[in-house]
Amino acid sequence: MTEIYDCIIIGGGLAGLNAATHLKKQGLNILLLEARNRFGGRTESIKVDDYWFDLGGQWMGGTHNYLRAVCEQLGVKSFPQFDEGKHVLEINGKKAYYAGNISTLNNSKDYKLDGLFECIDLIDKLAAELDPTKPHSHPRTKEFDYQTVDQWTRDNVKSVDAKAIIDWFCRVCVAAEPTEVSFLYFLHFIRTAGNYSLLADIHGGAQQDRLIGGSQQISDKMAERLGRGSYYLNSPVKAIYQDKNICTVKTELVTYKSKYVICAIPPTLAGRIEYRPPMPSQRDELTQRMPMGSVIKTIVIYDEPFWRKEGYSAEALSDKGPIFICYDDSSHDDKKTAIVGFIAGRAAKEWGKKTPEERKKAVLECYARWWGDKALHCRHYLEKDWKTEEYSRGCYLAYGGPGVLESCGDALRQPVGRIHWAGTETASKWIGYMEGALESGERAAQEVKQKLLSSKL
Amino acid sequence: MTEIYDCIIIGGGLAGLNAATHLKKQGLNILLLEARNRFGGRTESIKVDDYWFDLGGQWMGGTHNYLRAVCEQLGVKSFPQFDEGKHVLEINGKKAYYAGNISTLNNSKDYKLDGLFECIDLIDKLAAELDPTKPHSHPRTKEFDYQTVDQWTRDNVKSVDAKAIIDWFCRVCVAAEPTEVSFLYFLHFIRTAGNYSLLADIHGGAQQDRLIGGSQQISDKMAERLGRGSYYLNSPVKAIYQDKNICTVKTELVTYKSKYVICAIPPTLAGRIEYRPPMPSQRDELTQRMPMGSVIKTIVIYDEPFWRKEGYSAEALSDKGPIFICYDDSSHDDKKTAIVGFIAGRAAKEWGKKTPEERKKAVLECYARWWGDKALHCRHYLEKDWKTEEYSRGCYLAYGGPGVLESCGDALRQPVGRIHWAGTETASKWIGYMEGALESGERAAQEVKQKLLSSKL
Repeated sequence: MTEIYDCIIIGGGLAGLNAATHLKKQGLNILLLEARNRFGGRTESIKVDDYWFDLGGQWMGGTHNYLRAVCEQLGVKSFPQFDEGKHVLEINGKKAYYAGNISTLNNSKDYKLDGLFECIDLIDKLAAELDPTKPHSHPRTKEFDYQTVDQWTRDNVKSVDAKAIIDWFCRVCVAAEPTEVSFLYFLHFIRTAGNYSLLADIHGGAQQDRLIGGSQQISDKMAERLGRGSYYLNSPVKAIYQDKNICTVKTELVTYKSKYVICAIPPTLAGRIEYRPPMPSQRDELTQRMPMGSVIKTIVIYDEPFWRKEGYSAEALSDKGPIFICYDDSSHDDKKTAIVGFIAGRAAKEWGKKTPEERKKAVLECYARWWGDKALHCRHYLEKDWKTEEYSRGCYLAYGGPGVLESCGDALRQPVGRIHWAGTETASKWIGYMEGALESGERAAQEVKQKLLSSKL
Repeated sequence: MTEIYDCIIIGGGLAGLNAATHLKKQGLNILLLEARNRFGGRTESIKVDDYWFDLGGQWMGGTHNYLRAVCEQLGVKSFPQFDEGKHVLEINGKKAYYAGNISTLNNSKDYKLDGLFECIDLIDKLAAELDPTKPHSHPRTKEFDYQTVDQWTRDNVKSVDAKAIIDWFCRVCVAAEPTEVSFLYFLHFIRTAGNYSLLADIHGGAQQDRLIGGSQQISDKMAERLGRGSYYLNSPVKAIYQDKNICTVKTELVTYKSKYVICAIPPTLAGRIEYRPPMPSQRDELTQRMPMGSVIKTIVIYDEPFWRKEGYSAEALSDKGPIFICYDDSSHDDKKTAIVGFIAGRAAKEWGKKTPEERKKAVLECYARWWGDKALHCRHYLEKDWKTEEYSRGCYLAYGGPGVLESCGDALRQPVGRIHWAGTETASKWIGYMEGALESGERAAQEVKQKLLSSKL
């Protein structure tokens, strides 16, 4: 007779693994199925020159308390993001170097940031009004959701430089253009992180710490603790059937049975699974309308941190690209020196059509533009275009265009029969981050646990 | 040994069937696979009281020359859409009756249509500038594609009534909200139809004629002419593998081989098939970003055409709903009398959550609002919520939100290796209509024929 699991979890990223961990701790009989030949989902660490670099999610923010606790449990150590020296701001064809906060550039020779800080305050104020578990319950939902970020900044930000910075922020945070993203979704993203500064900042903010050994090890260690037999790799799920009593989960060759399913993959990929009965239309509408962001992550490994010697932090904010944001990515012991940079939004789509060699050349030239010709000669160039990864199809997260949250938002987390939804997009804290993924996994596990308990009573 | 077809066509709607028909005429060995237990795709005819009503596409427009020729070949007869009497315009909470053209209402007691006709002229002028095979090659692509229809009407239409009419037009034509649809996509839609009036009009326009016996018979007759063995119903395609020489097409139980594949289903559904090698990112980005429109089509069958007797045409334009547009749907011999009405866009999502009984009540009350209490008592109420149909997942067509055509438009029609794309969305004339579906099928067939010919040389 086929074994009937209490719950099958689809997806071996942080969300799925945390859901599995929680259910297993309750003594439940679970099985996790991962499509790829590795765990980690949108985190992936690669060893180069005997050091682990991250091609996916990599930072532990100052308020990523869940992630911090998990890292402590698993013995994963962190170290502060390097941040000393002058940063670059390259907006509207102008380039300036500054130390500390961007506000020091206000009314400088190059930039007029009139309205930027008032605008950020307003965004924070509006974001704070949202219910992070139901952003589309805000009284001004239609107004906010029916416009794009670009529309809002056009109408609400005074100076062109300030507008360019908010637009840039959307591009690098959501990995989609301000012309694509609903303003309500943008507010929701900010709301779940806390505020604008927490997203932008290093100290105390989203980019505070990095993990020695890379972030994929968290997933690997969680899987290891689940133990063999609790998971299968190389097992893309093709179909989920459910009736009143049972779920049937089909991979290409094997069919599994369970009482419940937690689907811990992005909405657009969940939409590619066949369901019997078919998904109700609201859920299907959602999966048709939440594309993944577009980002190519690059890591350039140098023989020496030439930028540091010249007083630069390797942090740059640009609306020209191809790199729109970058940071020092050197090892904790400074033995390996590198810069991590992101090609985001529309540029990721354009640069994605070119060859790795072309991208490498453009990235190095971009760094040379900021920090001189030493940037042209690197030891290694690593990159990952997440759009090409069949079982992610983009990063960092799925986003909603105008009208999506308002009309389909309920379907993001609402279970459909015995199927529950996890994944960083479904979180109420730090959507798009490892933190959100972990939270969502526990929340979905709780839902399933509750149902299992009440069915036993 | 497995038979190797010259081409496998996926989808037994008008696009797929026309592609198959063209290839078969060339003496090629083809196989068509349809997921449903019927042909017709987004056309579906249902016999009620011994008369065929259409739950999907139903009109043959004045310039639908391809469709007209096909109907003639297949012996499908048409008759003019009934259009006599006064129409209803219900916009911004006001209701007026008018005969002939909407322009007669200009500066009437109720409506101020200042700017409407200038705006339509401007839309037509801009649309005419587009290349219908590549709308995103227009010099102002970014400007047009980075805004929604709502943004454009807000900035370009003088009176609130005129704006409401253009917004309404987007909703009923594209079956999506003006806040969701890219202005470039809207222009493209209009461009492929010819102009605004051709879409709106009955005489000479998109709603000129109806088909005796319904529209699904076109597909049924095309399939019949293909002959048994040329197609299989109930055969949803799960995977397409291709290498340099051959395609492998997998349904749940059977695997087929062919030299080429024509995928004649909407982009979002094509995105749910598994491909080996996986789709290049640009194509996948597109399939993540072109959701299907939202529409519920309703048909109310009455014992008598009470509206005609009172001088009404049964044509109503409303931004209140639940019916946003309706027409007389009586039989060619007037023996059956009915009204066909559409719940479109956001309202289709909302009303889709309710029961058929609730919708019926609301639709009848809507008609009573316009034509009196006789509308409350019907013989039959038919409806089809296309979003719930697993192998359509919406109607009339897929649309692009802001930025989609510009960044992903090339992937709409560009073959990927041995896989070619058809479907009304890929047409250059009348996208979203039966006309476009037919054209796209022939175009894809030509592409495959050319490749087969050149590989033989």
